Amino acid sequence: MRILIAGADGYLGWPLLQHLAARGHEVAGVDNGARRRWVAEMGSVSAIPIAEPAERRAAFADRFGAPPAWWDGDLRDIERVRAVVREWEPDAVVHLGECPSAPYSMIDAEHAIAVQVNNVVGTFSLLAAMHEIRPDAHLVKLGTMGEYGTPNIDIPEGFFEIEYRGRTDTLPFPRQAGSWYHWSKVHGSNNIMFACRIWGLRATDVMQGVVFGTRPGDEPPPPALRTRLDFDEAFGTAINRFCCQAVVGHPLTPFGEGHQRRGFLALRDSMQCLTLALEHPPAAGEYRVFNQFQEVYGLAELAAMVQRVSGELGMDVEVCPVENPRLEAASHHYAPDHQRLLDLGYMPTTDIEAEMRLVLEDLLPYRERIEAHADVLVPGVRWDGRRERVPWLRAPARVR
Amino acid sequence: MRILIAGADGYLGWPLLQHLAARGHEVAGVDNGARRRWVAEMGSVSAIPIAEPAERRAAFADRFGAPPAWWDGDLRDIERVRAVVREWEPDAVVHLGECPSAPYSMIDAEHAIAVQVNNVVGTFSLLAAMHEIRPDAHLVKLGTMGEYGTPNIDIPEGFFEIEYRGRTDTLPFPRQAGSWYHWSKVHGSNNIMFACRIWGLRATDVMQGVVFGTRPGDEPPPPALRTRLDFDEAFGTAINRFCCQAVVGHPLTPFGEGHQRRGFLALRDSMQCLTLALEHPPAAGEYRVFNQFQEVYGLAELAAMVQRVSGELGMDVEVCPVENPRLEAASHHYAPDHQRLLDLGYMPTTDIEAEMRLVLEDLLPYRERIEAHADVLVPGVRWDGRRERVPWLRAPARVR
Repeated sequence: MRILIAGADGYLGWPLLQHLAARGHEVAGVDNGARRRWVAEMGSVSAIPIAEPAERRAAFADRFGAPPAWWDGDLRDIERVRAVVREWEPDAVVHLGECPSAPYSMIDAEHAIAVQVNNVVGTFSLLAAMHEIRPDAHLVKLGTMGEYGTPNIDIPEGFFEIEYRGRTDTLPFPRQAGSWYHWSKVHGSNNIMFACRIWGLRATDVMQGVVFGTRPGDEPPPPALRTRLDFDEAFGTAINRFCCQAVVGHPLTPFGEGHQRRGFLALRDSMQCLTLALEHPPAAGEYRVFNQFQEVYGLAELAAMVQRVSGELGMDVEVCPVENPRLEAASHHYAPDHQRLLDLGYMPTTDIEAEMRLVLEDLLPYRERIEAHADVLVPGVRWDGRRERVPWLRAPARVR
Repeated sequence: MRILIAGADGYLGWPLLQHLAARGHEVAGVDNGARRRWVAEMGSVSAIPIAEPAERRAAFADRFGAPPAWWDGDLRDIERVRAVVREWEPDAVVHLGECPSAPYSMIDAEHAIAVQVNNVVGTFSLLAAMHEIRPDAHLVKLGTMGEYGTPNIDIPEGFFEIEYRGRTDTLPFPRQAGSWYHWSKVHGSNNIMFACRIWGLRATDVMQGVVFGTRPGDEPPPPALRTRLDFDEAFGTAINRFCCQAVVGHPLTPFGEGHQRRGFLALRDSMQCLTLALEHPPAAGEYRVFNQFQEVYGLAELAAMVQRVSGELGMDVEVCPVENPRLEAASHHYAPDHQRLLDLGYMPTTDIEAEMRLVLEDLLPYRERIEAHADVLVPGVRWDGRRERVPWLRAPARVR
């Protein structure tokens, strides 16, 4: 299958390019380098050093016999997107080319607008180019479980049949996102649903849980093929950030009481699930929603797990909850369905502590690199508009 | 009350400015002139000639003793929006400053992007400026009944309590819009709902039916105070277009079998409802949704009414259905609630035929002006991507 990955230089895009090439697919990437710039704007770096794009592609060629087809390009530029789709003629497009950060979108109005325009226009340009040039291609779009929020009822996969005043219909499940970023994903999902309806496109919208991990497979890849791992408040996800905190002896900082429950999955599971979606496309005109996560955890529970695994590796870290910078329910019902990927053959990584151990081991060589940027380890962007960090957490105690 | 109207040069904005001034409110307007440019792009003009903005304000001053405060400005420019809000210090903002056309958004990908960016960013800039500068002000935002689409269940006003798998919650009613424009309104509504939640803003989101009419009150205003009336396929609404067709002896062109049902209301009712919303603001943090229309009609039924009223005025017009350029259900359940404005005192205009007669009478002096642009009277923009007009409808038979 000829596959185009938008956002191929990112945390998921870069390992997915390799994973799909290893399975025999012809792969191409497009990226505008935004993720590297955004993380630099947050005053941070990837904890695991990553190679420059050209080096990455050379290492890819060493491993797979040829470099991936590649375009530098911004998805907001629809003419550029058309040119890429025309030249590569993809059978499938994986859209990972969005700004993926809730805190980044909450910095101020300018950031909120930038995130919404980037994500809405980028997604629309891909839809329109596919409609115009490759109408039979399959769009696999990365959404987020955060689109649903935390309603007091179970969360189906995208749609639900309801009865209201004695009549019934199957309708899109109401979205209640929790940041300007999450709403940009809802806007994108709505546009994709409509594109399938009027243009007959086929799409899989993946409501992904929070991904963590350093390895797309069992072995760590050679240096130039490794993917990034962020630990700043905007681009670092919960478990990854806890592991980076542990490695430098910084207290682990779940938000509030840590009873918020979310779906999580390992990086390797994300690769597996996206591949399953690609290799089992929906029918023309079908807008298919998958909820993609391995298991639901509370944040405090995850911090305790990282603390325990760190202890086994000789690291003695505290757990110090910080005031929740987000506006979200402290405790709530949370029961999202996630059956469809299992039906396609998804085999979840069930030993989450073993996966955490690999992350910690992969991070240990980069302790000094994380320490040099330790001030990004606690959140400063607050949903109420304030932006301030808890000062006593800034200077981490050194690990013995 | 100090009121800022965004889109104050438009079909609703200009008469609303006068209506509110007549009720003793202090009014200001901001507009970038986009509506005039969009209609020109469609190859059309307002059927009723309208004055230039400066002339309009001079006539306003003649009538109300002083010109309205006024800013030329584009809502996508957040710095400009902040400056306007800082200078005017509004107690309420009425947001009519969006591109209001489904067909315009369906012309091609570039138009779709332009409409979504214009509407999403403009609305967001107003929200952010209000949050930063006038957090207690009330936003009255014009949405559209088209956000809901035509579900097979009743449509509540914004939210509904549902039971699902034995649990209950009150959730936003699922939206199923029917064009890129209508989705831009959904994206905006979602952003407003979230702004009320995190910033404590107060907002009324008005899901308005299709407005028709030439008069905001009983008497026609003097020439420079009149509002526009469009008849091109993008900016002319159904009844207004039927009336313009009748005046030039062109067949009335409902889409398909004309069984699509929609909510309609007279221009004067729109003024009345927006004023009721303004004068009865919601509590801080409340996101309130009103469904605003007088009555639900089928399109064929409306065409027959316009035909009958035209006949009474001596105009003999045919009804010739054209293939529906939109993708929409030909016949469907349609039962939207619309109780909240009635509870606030809304007295609907119930004699729709009398209102149509006024429109026809107001249009008759401009028959030649409409005839000169008669090729815009049939739709060309199609939801399936084609753009072509039915040729035999182009040359209207002259009225006797």
